Amino acid sequence: MQIKINVGPGGFVRLVDTMPTATAESSSLDSAVVQAARISTGSGIKDPEKDRNLIRFLMRNRHTSPFEMVEFKFHLKMPIFVARQWMRHRTASINEYSGRYAEIPDECWIPNPYDIRTQSTLNKQSSDPVPYYSEDAGEFYTQFKAIYDKTYKVYKKAVNSNVAREQARTLLPQAMYTEFYWKIDLHNLLNFLKLRMDKHAQKEIQEFAEAVYKLLKPLVPNCCEAFEDYMLDSFTFCKQELLVLKAALKPLINGDKLIVDCSSLGKTETTDFQLKLSKLGIDLAKKES
Amino acid sequence: MQIKINVGPGGFVRLVDTMPTATAESSSLDSAVVQAARISTGSGIKDPEKDRNLIRFLMRNRHTSPFEMVEFKFHLKMPIFVARQWMRHRTASINEYSGRYAEIPDECWIPNPYDIRTQSTLNKQSSDPVPYYSEDAGEFYTQFKAIYDKTYKVYKKAVNSNVAREQARTLLPQAMYTEFYWKIDLHNLLNFLKLRMDKHAQKEIQEFAEAVYKLLKPLVPNCCEAFEDYMLDSFTFCKQELLVLKAALKPLINGDKLIVDCSSLGKTETTDFQLKLSKLGIDLAKKES
Amino acid sequence: MQIKINVGPGGFVRLVDTMPTATAESSSLDSAVVQAARISTGSGIKDPEKDRNLIRFLMRNRHTSPFEMVEFKFHLKMPIFVARQWMRHRTASINEYSGRYAEIPDECWIPNPYDIRTQSTLNKQSSDPVPYYSEDAGEFYTQFKAIYDKTYKVYKKAVNSNVAREQARTLLPQAMYTEFYWKIDLHNLLNFLKLRMDKHAQKEIQEFAEAVYKLLKPLVPNCCEAFEDYMLDSFTFCKQELLVLKAALKPLINGDKLIVDCSSLGKTETTDFQLKLSKLGIDLAKKES
Amino acid sequence: MQIKINVGPGGFVRLVDTMPTATAESSSLDSAVVQAARISTGSGIKDPEKDRNLIRFLMRNRHTSPFEMVEFKFHLKMPIFVARQWMRHRTASINEYSGRYAEIPDECWIPNPYDIRTQSTLNKQSSDPVPYYSEDAGEFYTQFKAIYDKTYKVYKKAVNSNVAREQARTLLPQAMYTEFYWKIDLHNLLNFLKLRMDKHAQKEIQEFAEAVYKLLKPLVPNCCEAFEDYMLDSFTFCKQELLVLKAALKPLINGDKLIVDCSSLGKTETTDFQLKLSKLGIDLAKKES
Repeated sequence: MQIKINVGPGGFVRLVDTMPTATAESSSLDSAVVQAARISTGSGIKDPEKDRNLIRFLMRNRHTSPFEMVEFKFHLKMPIFVARQWMRHRTASINEYSGRYAEIPDECWIPNPYDIRTQSTLNKQSSDPVPYYSEDAGEFYTQFKAIYDKTYKVYKKAVNSNVAREQARTLLPQAMYTEFYWKIDLHNLLNFLKLRMDKHAQKEIQEFAEAVYKLLKPLVPNCCEAFEDYMLDSFTFCKQELLVLKAALKPLINGDKLIVDCSSLGKTETTDFQLKLSKLGIDLAKKES
Repeated sequence: MQIKINVGPGGFVRLVDTMPTATAESSSLDSAVVQAARISTGSGIKDPEKDRNLIRFLMRNRHTSPFEMVEFKFHLKMPIFVARQWMRHRTASINEYSGRYAEIPDECWIPNPYDIRTQSTLNKQSSDPVPYYSEDAGEFYTQFKAIYDKTYKVYKKAVNSNVAREQARTLLPQAMYTEFYWKIDLHNLLNFLKLRMDKHAQKEIQEFAEAVYKLLKPLVPNCCEAFEDYMLDSFTFCKQELLVLKAALKPLINGDKLIVDCSSLGKTETTDFQLKLSKLGIDLAKKES
Repeated sequence: MQIKINVGPGGFVRLVDTMPTATAESSSLDSAVVQAARISTGSGIKDPEKDRNLIRFLMRNRHTSPFEMVEFKFHLKMPIFVARQWMRHRTASINEYSGRYAEIPDECWIPNPYDIRTQSTLNKQSSDPVPYYSEDAGEFYTQFKAIYDKTYKVYKKAVNSNVAREQARTLLPQAMYTEFYWKIDLHNLLNFLKLRMDKHAQKEIQEFAEAVYKLLKPLVPNCCEAFEDYMLDSFTFCKQELLVLKAALKPLINGDKLIVDCSSLGKTETTDFQLKLSKLGIDLAKKES
Repeated sequence: MQIKINVGPGGFVRLVDTMPTATAESSSLDSAVVQAARISTGSGIKDPEKDRNLIRFLMRNRHTSPFEMVEFKFHLKMPIFVARQWMRHRTASINEYSGRYAEIPDECWIPNPYDIRTQSTLNKQSSDPVPYYSEDAGEFYTQFKAIYDKTYKVYKKAVNSNVAREQARTLLPQAMYTEFYWKIDLHNLLNFLKLRMDKHAQKEIQEFAEAVYKLLKPLVPNCCEAFEDYMLDSFTFCKQELLVLKAALKPLINGDKLIVDCSSLGKTETTDFQLKLSKLGIDLAKKES
């Protein structure tokens, strides 16, 4: 079982513990979700296929509380500017390295010139997705490195001459590495990952979120499968978009029915799909396969 | 400005206060969302149409934190079995009438026989949506009323003979009315309403949620419009459903393009819609109107 | 390791899981607190006595975040009127048996006549601490039992004649048993226990809280020892009380010093104690022992 | 009504809004606490002295939920290293200036050389309380300023040459100013202030917390008076300290009674005080005044 993934020049994501304990078969964590859901219905444990279907049902219908019954604890090391975004999520428990108590090590996230991106011209908040190398990036890299080295020396000298650590550290860049323990339940973790694995998130936090997801997936395979199908790879169409879709589908409607091949959908998924389309005034007819 | 709506035989929803204060023009609360969002971008107040668009943008992209900046306080009176569901939402502040401290008044939710529903045969968790009158319902009503009257007399006598109120009340039905103050921010309120105005929620809680929404809507008209378009009346299609949709749309694609009439979509909404379809491998061409 | 305690006529408290896993030596959970605290100071694991002292230091100074790093999951069965108080604590995760989905079993908390208390004459919110037997209590018991039996029969008949379960259950008393999973971290659990083991809490919830504490204590012995010393068995004296204490101690002050025997205090505890008294203008002198 | 206080070289605390609205008499916010508490007891509004006593009772007995019914919104500008500590409190809503979206202004917290403190020799986490001027501090100041100026120029040049803002900003010091809206209820605000006005908190955050308190106090005078008496200026004595106190008081006990002057305590406060001492086995006798 992989428990640590290095991220960027000096960061990492390390799984410290889970509840329940992860076993070799790694079905115990998925089962804890099922067990919690079944207390609501007063029914006992069933077979693996029914468990998988229950998890899919819960995720599809946003019955979120059973996913809160599984807990994860990570040890993370990341630049402060990433940690600042990470800690805006208020549903986790955190213990962080203290720059008041201990000296800050000489560890700064210095971006490789090939990882320096340009400001997006389309989206004010983003960088352009494809990294590039340019003279400007090269120059920024050189100056970043030079400034950082000088800054850390000033910090170190200040600490040695007895300037309070809590003040001396304030000169250090926001790219300094920090470390913390991070404890969160599965429901809130998946919400977090949906937001931070998104392509609108800053690329540096996406990489940490993806590393967390890589450690998570083998531990709760059924939950992650449902998460991908119903949250990560789903789209929400708004009221106006649905009307456009409806109009687009109109020529295909034959004798009041839209004939589609639903063979890739399960039984309740087909019912759900029919229900959605019927809200658009479209009746579904299954294509004979 | 309406501030109180009666719900069911003895319940009500009453708006006590808001932050910011609601004024006659009732745009102050929408503006507080805009004001909070604009601190992120460092830009000032703009015109009403830009404000409305910003709210729609925030809702569409689930930028939830500005909606937390508006606060509501309600005074609610509802049966305990509804209050139990209501209080499972952990993001509100609550002060409730105490049956330990004060005597419980003679107020019970007794359903009209025409409001007694049958157990759903399709969904184990629900009742059938259409109320009906039957001999069974009539008999249940008669017995409910008779048992309640007897029970309250026993409670009253126990309290008068000095049995501790905190114990005497435990015999009373879960249909007894209770009252509480309920304070919540707009983001969490809309989440709550999405879940509790849903047709899968118990009908009795739906009615209270709808009354809250009715008081809310004139106070934050732009937020509620965006909520309806992007949350309440939107659908999420899962990965598998999207593949079925894609196959269904295939015959309509003409020279690599799907020609649709997007005139009901705004500029950024059209871009968003194109983006979603392009993930399905479908290129959009706007229909000349 | 004891994992289940029966409470009252039909309730129980059962420990389902912990993070970290509890081992035979049962020091793993205390250690998780220490491990989380040490990431702040950048220092590693030390000896058991130092770990115990660190836990005491954290509890004494309300450094609460390391106590959030330990997690507990319980399966609880209790009357609804107790569960209502229990669920007001918003920092736990809950999955409860659903009376909408499944039939409610014939299980009601019916107080033994010897457990029926009188209304407190001193405190409007409480019952008198000493239970008693009286004719009034006996009569209440007899009527409680009779009403309950009749009520459950009406419920059962309604369900059998297809009245919706979600409505039929509302007639049942608030003393009906319910079951739920309850997941909470150690910091929030100790806060909960401080409030609910308190003699001002309703006796019925005190008993459940005490059962939880009984299961907890062998798992985190150092944390519970510190909890008792610094929270449960401590008093807070307010500004006015401190002035009264100061005046009371005045005659004992000899040449500017109050001579006391601090041999029961540790080194840092003595420093803390001196600090508190010095705020009252009292200097401490240790008694030669 | 003062609504803005400048803090440090470039920071400020500004009150944006409250719920309820603050009026000239400024008793509306205290009243909202009373109103929420009174719903529990089913009783109406009483006179000002009874309201003040109720607030004191609630604070003394940690009945915290009525204090959640009052809400505050602030606009804050502070260095990032202070904001990082500030945002660890998870019970507030936050909207922050985004360095991804907008350019970071040339505003850095540069400590005056007279405000640079030495590392505490007693407490690893703190600085020595008394600021001093030394050659070391002077040198640190000079270098801080020089490094900062150079760093900001590099940032500015990078942004101008189209390096992504979200990356360019990472080189900037943790002392850069940031701005955010901060919304929190009175209960959680007082908890926050208790921790951050404490002398163990970093001095820079203490100053911001004190400015918040200065704006708060005229708005909820009764709540703040109770906060000071029962939380800020109170001490908690642990089990061991209480035993030492008890032994110290022993010589004063005369015929089983400790005679003290309780004239500065109210009626219920005297009862509370007697109760605490009686747990130490000390009976109280009021001194005739």
